Amino acid sequence: MPTKKKNKTTENKPIGIFDSGFGGLTVMSEIRKCLPKENLIYFGDTAHVPYGSKSKNAVINFSKDIAGFLIKKDVKLIVVACNTASAFALDNLKKNLKVPVIGVIDPGAKAAAAVTKNKNIGVIGTEGTVQSGSYLKAIKKISGYSVSQQACPLFVPLVEEGWVNNKVTDDIVRHYLKPLLKKNIDTLVLGCTHYPILKNSLQKNAGKKITLVDSAKATANEVKNILEKNKISSKNSKKGTLAFYVSDNPEKFAQIGGKFFSNKISKVTKINPERA
Amino acid sequence: MPTKKKNKTTENKPIGIFDSGFGGLTVMSEIRKCLPKENLIYFGDTAHVPYGSKSKNAVINFSKDIAGFLIKKDVKLIVVACNTASAFALDNLKKNLKVPVIGVIDPGAKAAAAVTKNKNIGVIGTEGTVQSGSYLKAIKKISGYSVSQQACPLFVPLVEEGWVNNKVTDDIVRHYLKPLLKKNIDTLVLGCTHYPILKNSLQKNAGKKITLVDSAKATANEVKNILEKNKISSKNSKKGTLAFYVSDNPEKFAQIGGKFFSNKISKVTKINPERA
Repeated sequence: MPTKKKNKTTENKPIGIFDSGFGGLTVMSEIRKCLPKENLIYFGDTAHVPYGSKSKNAVINFSKDIAGFLIKKDVKLIVVACNTASAFALDNLKKNLKVPVIGVIDPGAKAAAAVTKNKNIGVIGTEGTVQSGSYLKAIKKISGYSVSQQACPLFVPLVEEGWVNNKVTDDIVRHYLKPLLKKNIDTLVLGCTHYPILKNSLQKNAGKKITLVDSAKATANEVKNILEKNKISSKNSKKGTLAFYVSDNPEKFAQIGGKFFSNKISKVTKINPERA
Repeated sequence: MPTKKKNKTTENKPIGIFDSGFGGLTVMSEIRKCLPKENLIYFGDTAHVPYGSKSKNAVINFSKDIAGFLIKKDVKLIVVACNTASAFALDNLKKNLKVPVIGVIDPGAKAAAAVTKNKNIGVIGTEGTVQSGSYLKAIKKISGYSVSQQACPLFVPLVEEGWVNNKVTDDIVRHYLKPLLKKNIDTLVLGCTHYPILKNSLQKNAGKKITLVDSAKATANEVKNILEKNKISSKNSKKGTLAFYVSDNPEKFAQIGGKFFSNKISKVTKINPERA
């Protein structure tokens, strides 16, 4: 039957994952751990990185171009592995694409609502993510919990400079956490895919009583659920393939990406999705 | 005579100035002070900002698109008011454009060579500028002086976050200056248009004996010289006009740009130079 044949083919198609740069690799790592047999294609928009300080319209346009490229690669599902792009472009992509599209915000929000005990949740993210209020809305939708937000524009450059465990980083982390700690939060959502790299400093300065929520794991579980629900999980008998594309600096991506990704990044191809 | 007529028209044409974002406004400010009767057009490539971490090829392509836009605006001279773009794209633009093109590196290098007494010059800049070795080559070309370089990737985000006078900024400034101070420099070139905003902290932590060289002033003087040499200085009897274009976020540019520019930024127009 044609329907059955179509589904069978879909199973073997890759999952497309994209981010403004390296950060989404933390999400890809979790998807790889959770779904090792899936073929994965990653796109990092390194010509436009960072998205956190760009406008909503610009991020929507970048995301549409990238999604177009991934659709040409015949993906069966797209993961928007970037908080800013999830905040700004997810609705647009969901409306215009025929494959399922998953962002990182809803899974992170659900996970946070599930772990908080005192019902005070803190969210840290880029300027764009915080201004969009997306976590706030997503958490409010599933609970009546109190949400406090804080933009942390220096975290991404700190991570990319490799300053993850030093005095300056601790000072900056304390500065950004201060207003959230005053609100008596017991749960802190890492609302940017770069932030898991700062987990040690964040946990140390937030204190042991605060639970850090990393959207990456929650997103990987959501991907698994959607694949199972749609009966399009890979039937590979061995590990799936990995492919990496960027819009600039493939050499740097291969080099720095290793910090964010559990597997070795061997080949990285440069393409311009706007012209692809 | 047609030639005379052409020259007369050229005098009234605007000067085009571009940068990856806001930073070049420090250069525009100096040009405005030095040449108040010139009409000035500024382009900030806020869809791609920052350039410092992008590849040479990407920066060349961005610069060519922007120069194309400025040429359509009929400019008589182009100022590449960005150190990374000057390092990577100046030769290409000079070769392919019919109007004079001025970068910020040669003027800064000349100014540094003129003020050093112990012949040890330090240069701070973005990753791209430092890796290109452009200041090093420019200073070596005019002198046998010793040059030490240091990339400071956290300075641009610090400036854009508005952290210009606090403890964390001082700590980061000291960290980056340390290897340069060990080299006994007496002159420090601010090799990025954002860095003049950090002048206070830089001077305090470098010590009074070190002279800071801001390329912006040197570049404005160079523009004046070229206009006079080519006899294309404005004959306006009153102050020239100012126009601002960006590739993203015009509202944010108008708001933050005020920190970098001496005049009020009233109207900012968004355009995509790649498609213009």
